[in-house]
Amino acid sequence: MRVSQLITKTRKEAPADETAKNAQLLIRAGYVHKDAAGVYVWLPLGRKVLNNIIQIIRDEMDAIGGQEVVMSTLQRKEVWERTNRWDDEIVDVWFKTTYKNGTEAGLAWSHEEQMVDTFRQHIDSYKDLPKAAYQFQNKLRNETRAKSGIMRTREFIMKDMYSFARTEAEHKEFYDKVTAAYLRIFERLGIGESTYFTVASGGAFAEFSHEFQTICEAGEDVVYIDDEKHIAINEEVMRDDVLKNLGVQKDKLRKAKTAEVGNIFSFGTSKSEPYDFVYTDENGEQQFVVMGSYGIGPARVMGVIVEHMGDDQGIVWPTEIAPYQLHITSLGNDDAVIAEANKIYNNLISAGFSVIWDDRDVSAGEKFADADLMGMPYRVVVSKKTIDSEAYEVKVRKTGEVLQLNLDELKKLLAK
Amino acid sequence: MRVSQLITKTRKEAPADETAKNAQLLIRAGYVHKDAAGVYVWLPLGRKVLNNIIQIIRDEMDAIGGQEVVMSTLQRKEVWERTNRWDDEIVDVWFKTTYKNGTEAGLAWSHEEQMVDTFRQHIDSYKDLPKAAYQFQNKLRNETRAKSGIMRTREFIMKDMYSFARTEAEHKEFYDKVTAAYLRIFERLGIGESTYFTVASGGAFAEFSHEFQTICEAGEDVVYIDDEKHIAINEEVMRDDVLKNLGVQKDKLRKAKTAEVGNIFSFGTSKSEPYDFVYTDENGEQQFVVMGSYGIGPARVMGVIVEHMGDDQGIVWPTEIAPYQLHITSLGNDDAVIAEANKIYNNLISAGFSVIWDDRDVSAGEKFADADLMGMPYRVVVSKKTIDSEAYEVKVRKTGEVLQLNLDELKKLLAK
Repeated sequence: MRVSQLITKTRKEAPADETAKNAQLLIRAGYVHKDAAGVYVWLPLGRKVLNNIIQIIRDEMDAIGGQEVVMSTLQRKEVWERTNRWDDEIVDVWFKTTYKNGTEAGLAWSHEEQMVDTFRQHIDSYKDLPKAAYQFQNKLRNETRAKSGIMRTREFIMKDMYSFARTEAEHKEFYDKVTAAYLRIFERLGIGESTYFTVASGGAFAEFSHEFQTICEAGEDVVYIDDEKHIAINEEVMRDDVLKNLGVQKDKLRKAKTAEVGNIFSFGTSKSEPYDFVYTDENGEQQFVVMGSYGIGPARVMGVIVEHMGDDQGIVWPTEIAPYQLHITSLGNDDAVIAEANKIYNNLISAGFSVIWDDRDVSAGEKFADADLMGMPYRVVVSKKTIDSEAYEVKVRKTGEVLQLNLDELKKLLAK
Repeated sequence: MRVSQLITKTRKEAPADETAKNAQLLIRAGYVHKDAAGVYVWLPLGRKVLNNIIQIIRDEMDAIGGQEVVMSTLQRKEVWERTNRWDDEIVDVWFKTTYKNGTEAGLAWSHEEQMVDTFRQHIDSYKDLPKAAYQFQNKLRNETRAKSGIMRTREFIMKDMYSFARTEAEHKEFYDKVTAAYLRIFERLGIGESTYFTVASGGAFAEFSHEFQTICEAGEDVVYIDDEKHIAINEEVMRDDVLKNLGVQKDKLRKAKTAEVGNIFSFGTSKSEPYDFVYTDENGEQQFVVMGSYGIGPARVMGVIVEHMGDDQGIVWPTEIAPYQLHITSLGNDDAVIAEANKIYNNLISAGFSVIWDDRDVSAGEKFADADLMGMPYRVVVSKKTIDSEAYEVKVRKTGEVLQLNLDELKKLLAK
C-alpha cells in the first residue's frame, strides 16, 4: 500500500473528548474513527490489525476442535426469560428494539442463551459429545459511560466459545486445552510475557474463574503476580486459601495494574438446566450437559497492546499483528529516489512481504513522525544517500535500534 | 472434518413454518438454524460457504483498489437527519433503540450516511481522489414480513462499497471497473452464465441504475433477457428508449423470473451535498465529491445459488464456494474399510484438499442421502469392494455422472 493511496490520513490531534491513550493514538494514526462515545469505525489500517488478531484466535480455536458459527444480533425474549436475564433490572446493559408487529427484541450483549437454544437441537446423545462452538460476533452493550477508548465500547466484536461435555472431568479436559490455547494466542499477539493466567471470582456460577490479565496502566483490574510461576491472583480473591491452593507465598507477590484480555468460565449445568438441555448417556439415562464459556475481545486486546507497547512517538505493533511489516520512507522527489523506492517496494511485495510506502510529497520530518505514529515494526529510509551506498538504514520501531542492511539482509530480518 | 465430529446434524424435515426452498434445504443439511422469522444462525457448514463467498468478493474489491473498513451498527440520529432519512415515515425499515441517557439510536439498515460522514473527515483535496471504501457488515431491517428464507432476512451481512470521485467521468471509470469485477465475482461463484447485467430504475438519484439478476424461480424480479449480448432489462424500465439505447430488439428478448444478486448506483453529488462533502480542486475551488454505491449480499447470493442449482435430492454447491470439495462415504464398519477411508482422508488433507468424511455408523442409504443433501461437488465411496479394486467410484453431484478413478486421478479432478 502507498500512503498516498490510503483513504485515511494521520492527524496531529485526537478529538478533544477522547481521553484514552489507545484511542488517541489509533485515531491520530488513522486506524479508527470515533463516531460517538463508545462507537468506533474501523478504518483500513485498523481493520487489518483487528483481522490479524482475529485470525490468530481462529487458528488456535480451530486447532483445539472449536467449530465456527455466527449467532444473530436480534435476540428473542423467550430465550432469555428461561435464564431470567431478559429483565433490565437484572441485566442492565440491554439495548432493546421493537418489531413492526410490536414484539420486543433484544440486541445481543452476550450469546450464551442463543448458543444453548441452538445446539440443544443438534446434541442429544453421548455420541454427540464433547463439542465446542465459537464465533466472532458483535456485542452491543448499553453502558452508562463509555471510556477507555476501544478497550470498552458500546459495540464490539467478541470471540466467544461455548463447550458442551458429558461430565465435569470431560469438561475440565477441554477447559485445560483452552487455557493452553489462550496462552499461545497471547504469545503470538506479542503480549505473552506480560499476560498472566489469573485466578478470579467465578461470579454466579462457580467459586472461581480464570482470567488472562495483561500489565496495563489503563487497566481496570489489580492483580498480585507470582513472577516465578508466571501466574496471578485477582485482588477480589486474594485470600489465604487461594494462595495455598496455588502454592504461592504472599510475600513473593507483586501488585500490578492490569487489563483483562480473556476469561474462561465453568458453568457446570447451570446453563443447560433452564433449557432442559440433556443428552442420553450410555445407559439410556438423561443427563444435563456440562458447559464452559471462553471469551476474548479482539478489539479490547488491540487497545491493550497499544496502551502497553505504545510510546511517546506513537504505536508499536508486534510483528504478527502489524498491518504492514515494513514502512518504506522515501525522501525527496528525485526521480532516482522514487525509482529506487519503487523497486524495493515491488521487490518485497513480490517476495510476499507486507509493505507500506510513504510516497507522499511531504517533508522528511513529517514522514518520520508518521512512521513512528503508525507503528510498523521496521522502517527503511530510501534517499539519495542510500542509492550510492550498499546498505539501507533500517530502524526497529520497538527498540529504536538502527541497522545497516542490504536488501537480502532486510528480507531475512522480515522473514523472522 | 469427520461428520461424526460436526456439531450439527442433518434432519429429515425443515420446520413447518419454513416455506422457502433455500432455507428448507440449508436447515435440513445443517448449514443454518432458524432462530426466528427472518433471523438465522450460521452453523459451521453454512459459515464456511458464506465465508468462501465473502472471500471471493473481497479479492475482487481489493483488486480494483477498494479499501476494507467496518462501520458501526449503532447509528446517530444527526447523521441521518442530514439526508432526511431518520424519520420512520420516510424509511420504514428502521429498528431503533435508546441509550441509557435517553438518546435515540438507529440500528444500521444501510451505511451510506455514516460512510460519507466518516470520509469527509479524511478527504479534502483533489490529491485524495478517487478512492473507494467497502465493508462486510450487518444490516438490520425491520421488514413487515420476512420470507424467501436467507434471501431476505431481518438481519444480514452485506458488502457495500462507496466510491468518491472528482468528476462524473472519473466516477464512470470506476463504475465500469466495478461492473467488470461483479461479473468476475458471479463467474467465480458459479452463476456467471445465469446472471445478467441488467438496466433498472435509478430510484431517487438517477434515471437508471444497474442490477445483476440471476435466473431464479423464487426471485422477486421479472427481466427481459437478450441472450446474445447476455444483458437484461428490468421490466420496470422496459421502454422503447431504453431498448434503443442498448441496441436490442424487443422481439429477441425472453422474459424470465430472476433474483437480484447485486446492484450498482450512481449518486452524483446527491449524497455529498447534504454533508457539504467537498474537495479543493486544482484551481483552489471547492467541488462536491461525486459518489457511487455498490452492493452484494453474500447470504442472499448463497440463497439464490441453493434455489437455482439445488435439485430434489438437495443442495449442489459450485466448486469455489463448497464447504468441502469432496465427500468421502465409507460403507460399513469393517476395520479394513475404516483404515482405507482414513488413509484417503489424511492423504487428501495433507495434499491441501478440503474433505469431509462420513465416518458415522449409519446405513449406506442414509449416508448417500445426506451426501446428496449436503451438496459437495464430488462424492467418493470407500467399501470392501473398492479396497479390492484399483479404482474408486466418484460421483459428480451436479450431473450425477459416475467416474472410476484411482487416487491420483481423483486428485487431478479436485485440483481443477
